Amino acid sequence: MTQFENNNFGDVLLNRHSVRHFDKDVKIPREELREMIKETITAPSACNLQAWQFIVVDTDEGKKKLHEFYMPFNNPQIDTSSAIIQIFGNTLAFKKYRALWDHMYEEKRISKEELDKVYNTFLPLYEHADKTMLTADAMVDSSLAAMQLMLVARAHGYETNAMAGYDAKKAASVMGLDPEQYVPVMGIAIGKPDASAEELKSVRYPVDDVLKFE
Amino acid sequence: MTQFENNNFGDVLLNRHSVRHFDKDVKIPREELREMIKETITAPSACNLQAWQFIVVDTDEGKKKLHEFYMPFNNPQIDTSSAIIQIFGNTLAFKKYRALWDHMYEEKRISKEELDKVYNTFLPLYEHADKTMLTADAMVDSSLAAMQLMLVARAHGYETNAMAGYDAKKAASVMGLDPEQYVPVMGIAIGKPDASAEELKSVRYPVDDVLKFE
Repeated sequence: MTQFENNNFGDVLLNRHSVRHFDKDVKIPREELREMIKETITAPSACNLQAWQFIVVDTDEGKKKLHEFYMPFNNPQIDTSSAIIQIFGNTLAFKKYRALWDHMYEEKRISKEELDKVYNTFLPLYEHADKTMLTADAMVDSSLAAMQLMLVARAHGYETNAMAGYDAKKAASVMGLDPEQYVPVMGIAIGKPDASAEELKSVRYPVDDVLKFE
Repeated sequence: MTQFENNNFGDVLLNRHSVRHFDKDVKIPREELREMIKETITAPSACNLQAWQFIVVDTDEGKKKLHEFYMPFNNPQIDTSSAIIQIFGNTLAFKKYRALWDHMYEEKRISKEELDKVYNTFLPLYEHADKTMLTADAMVDSSLAAMQLMLVARAHGYETNAMAGYDAKKAASVMGLDPEQYVPVMGIAIGKPDASAEELKSVRYPVDDVLKFE
C-alpha cells in the first residue's frame, strides 16, 4: 500500500481547509500526480460507472486555457498552484460498461448469471436515460472522486482549493473535450501553501441545522 | 479531536468497499451518528453554501418510507443496515447565506470589505441562478459530503453502501421535505458487515483511461 506522508485520518479529514495562495516554486512530479488520481478513483460510483475524467494542468499553456473559462477570483489559485486537476463528468460512461463487466466475467470474478443481471437490470437504465439523469449521475460520481482527491492530496503533504466559478459552457471545448459528452464539475488546485499568505478559515452551520432523524 | 477507531488514512480510503449485507443486530447510537455527520460537514462546498441536508433513518417506520421510493435491489442494504443516511441537496441554501456571513463579520473573522465582497460578488450569482444551476451545485456539495461520510463511517469501524437507485420524484415528499427545494442525491447504508455474506469486489478502469495531462 502507498506510504502516505500524513497517514493520520483525523488530521487529514478534520484539518483540511481551502488554500488559495500556494508556493510557486513547488513542482509536483507527474508520476506523483498520476498516483494521486489512482488513489482517488477507488471512490465508489453509481453502478460502478466511474463517470469521471481528469485533466491535470501543470504547464503555463494549460493554465492559460483555464483562464479562458474561470472567473478572475480564481486567478490566485490557478497562478500559484503546482497543478490544477480539472474534473469532468463523462455522460456516456455507460458505453464502456459492457467491456468492464465482460472483463470481470472473463476473469471469473462474476458468474454468467451476475453478468446477465447487469446487462438486463442496470445497463438499460442508462441506455434509456435522458441527458438530465446522465449529467446528474456523472456529476455525483465526479464529486465523490473530487472529495477523495482533496483528502489524498493532503495525505501526500499538499493542500487544495476546490474551484467552482467558471463558464460551464466553455470548459470542455477549451480543454479539448466534446462538450456534448463531458460536463465540468470542478477544478482542484493543489500545491504547498504559501506560508506568508493569510487564509480565511470558513465556518459551518451547526450540525442540527442540517440533520433530522426518522 | 475525535478518537477514531481506525485512524489509518490509507486503510480507510484504499480498503473501503461497498457492503450490501449487514449484521442486523448492530445498533449505532444516535449520538455517534450525529457525531459522524458533524465530521462529515467539514467537507468544502461551493462558496461555503453547505447545500446539504441529512435524514438519518434508523427506525422501522423510517425504513418503510425508504421502500416507497427505492428500487428493490436496495432492499438488502435497507433492511439489514443499522441506519441509512438519506442525503438531499438544498437548492435554496443561499437564503441562509447572509446570516452565516453576517455572523462571521460580527465575530470579527472577516472585515467589512470582505463582507461586502460576498454580498456583491457571490450572493448575486445564486440569487439570479436558474433551477438547473442551483440543483447541480446542491448535488455537488452533497456528494462531497457523502464521500466524507463513507470514509468517516469506516474510521468509526463501520462499512457503507451508497445507494443510487430510487424514484427521484418521490424521495423528498415521502421524507417530509419540499420537493421543490430538496433534490435527492443518494442514500448511505451504514453498519457492521454480515461476516457470512460474500461481497462482490468491484474493479476500476486503468487510471490512464480517465487521465490526461495538459
